[in-house]
Amino acid sequence: MTDPWQECMDYAVALARKAGEIIRGALKEEISVMTKSSPVDLVTETDQKVENFIISLIKEKYPSHSFIGEESVAAGEGSILTDNPTWIIDPIDGTTNFVHRFPFVAVSIGFVVNKKIEFGIVYSCIEDKMYTARKGKGAFCNGQKLQVSGQEDITKSLLVTELGSNRDPETVKIILSNMERLLSIPIHGIRAVGTAAVNMCLVATGGADAYYEMGIHCWDMAGAGIIVTEAGGVLLDVSGGPFDLMSRRIIAASSRAIGERIAKALQIIPLKRDDAAN
Amino acid sequence: MTDPWQECMDYAVALARKAGEIIRGALKEEISVMTKSSPVDLVTETDQKVENFIISLIKEKYPSHSFIGEESVAAGEGSILTDNPTWIIDPIDGTTNFVHRFPFVAVSIGFVVNKKIEFGIVYSCIEDKMYTARKGKGAFCNGQKLQVSGQEDITKSLLVTELGSNRDPETVKIILSNMERLLSIPIHGIRAVGTAAVNMCLVATGGADAYYEMGIHCWDMAGAGIIVTEAGGVLLDVSGGPFDLMSRRIIAASSRAIGERIAKALQIIPLKRDDAAN
Repeated sequence: MTDPWQECMDYAVALARKAGEIIRGALKEEISVMTKSSPVDLVTETDQKVENFIISLIKEKYPSHSFIGEESVAAGEGSILTDNPTWIIDPIDGTTNFVHRFPFVAVSIGFVVNKKIEFGIVYSCIEDKMYTARKGKGAFCNGQKLQVSGQEDITKSLLVTELGSNRDPETVKIILSNMERLLSIPIHGIRAVGTAAVNMCLVATGGADAYYEMGIHCWDMAGAGIIVTEAGGVLLDVSGGPFDLMSRRIIAASSRAIGERIAKALQIIPLKRDDAAN
Repeated sequence: MTDPWQECMDYAVALARKAGEIIRGALKEEISVMTKSSPVDLVTETDQKVENFIISLIKEKYPSHSFIGEESVAAGEGSILTDNPTWIIDPIDGTTNFVHRFPFVAVSIGFVVNKKIEFGIVYSCIEDKMYTARKGKGAFCNGQKLQVSGQEDITKSLLVTELGSNRDPETVKIILSNMERLLSIPIHGIRAVGTAAVNMCLVATGGADAYYEMGIHCWDMAGAGIIVTEAGGVLLDVSGGPFDLMSRRIIAASSRAIGERIAKALQIIPLKRDDAAN
């Protein structure tokens, strides 16, 4: 039986690579910065340009497919996930990094059918690392098969997470207090490279044992989520329950034991879902 | 006039590159982990092996020089800085990263004469990035000249720091509360790649606007410190006063304005100096 989505995946890899070229080119020019939800929630013309580039080329080839893109949603389009084949796109995951030329910037493409992720692409374009995963066929980085660490002991774990762009004092307090609870278990440490997608890919490589975050969006998780599971990892909700792509929260762990232990430590931040009515 | 230390610097670059090869080789084998000052202050046989490798080869060539090496100090040797030409060595900056194969691990070599840093080498060996700086001659990464961002506005800044390996509850509270104060200014964000030396080199590249940390050691700062200043940055104490290599505290900033603003926000952690009597 031929794989019905392999052609879409090959196309996505090619588009992500071209998008990465556009981003690398833009890094050589002056970057003009605008803000979105807060003074530190940044966006640039390149985010919009790259998203338009990717979506227009997919639409041409697959006119019946649906799209959820970070910048289209910011511009007022909906983000309701249906059963239709849906491309979920973050043109630049790590826009703040991009603005600063901090060297972790990713193009993220997830492809979802019947609400299940079929494949994911994360192209960390400054590092030139192409992460890919097709459901049931494993996860790869530049052709090399990925495997999570499999670590089950939280006291031997290295975690990745982010401080985020929300500067509401109560939210910041919960984010830091969650770090405090985890550090005091103790764990080996916490790292933050500034993009959800690359953080998750680091879990897939075995370099980190888990990633958690609240406040991110489906376009930050759809591409990398399946890269983690195809590398042998698990996705959980921050409550420890099943992962929900539209919930804006995630634990991506190398083992269920580590994921559940993190869930136990986390105080939950109230968030409006990606698919909530406006 | 010939540069009296250029030959030492060329030798240091060659040694750092060879040390990086040893480290990359060790990443392919099983890593056995021991602990030092706390259950999360890790060390491996490779740290010791690489330090012995570097120091023995330098001693052969420069028998009159002095040494301060992380693992030699851990083994009981002193760390008093004299006016004698002194090599300050961290064989693996980012040992926790090394243990996890998190991809930022650096060999750091600083060379100090009359208590002034003459040159510094930081070899981020998984990325294969060789950062170098000679006093008065600029800073480079793989031959490309480095320049800090020059950012002076803290509200537009991206910072790097670490949560560290101290798990004393009071210390952790100060570290997190310092992040809270900085985030609320607001700043664009905080990143942490897990090695002081690479964090500082990211400031030198312009990718981050400042790095600060308390609790690190002279071997974490000696190599990268001059890379920051030769890229146009400044080193300050966390109080805002002059930087002191043996004080275990640093702000490495792209401008004095940003450095002083960070100093104003920081609550200071009491620390025993590197050159304190035991």
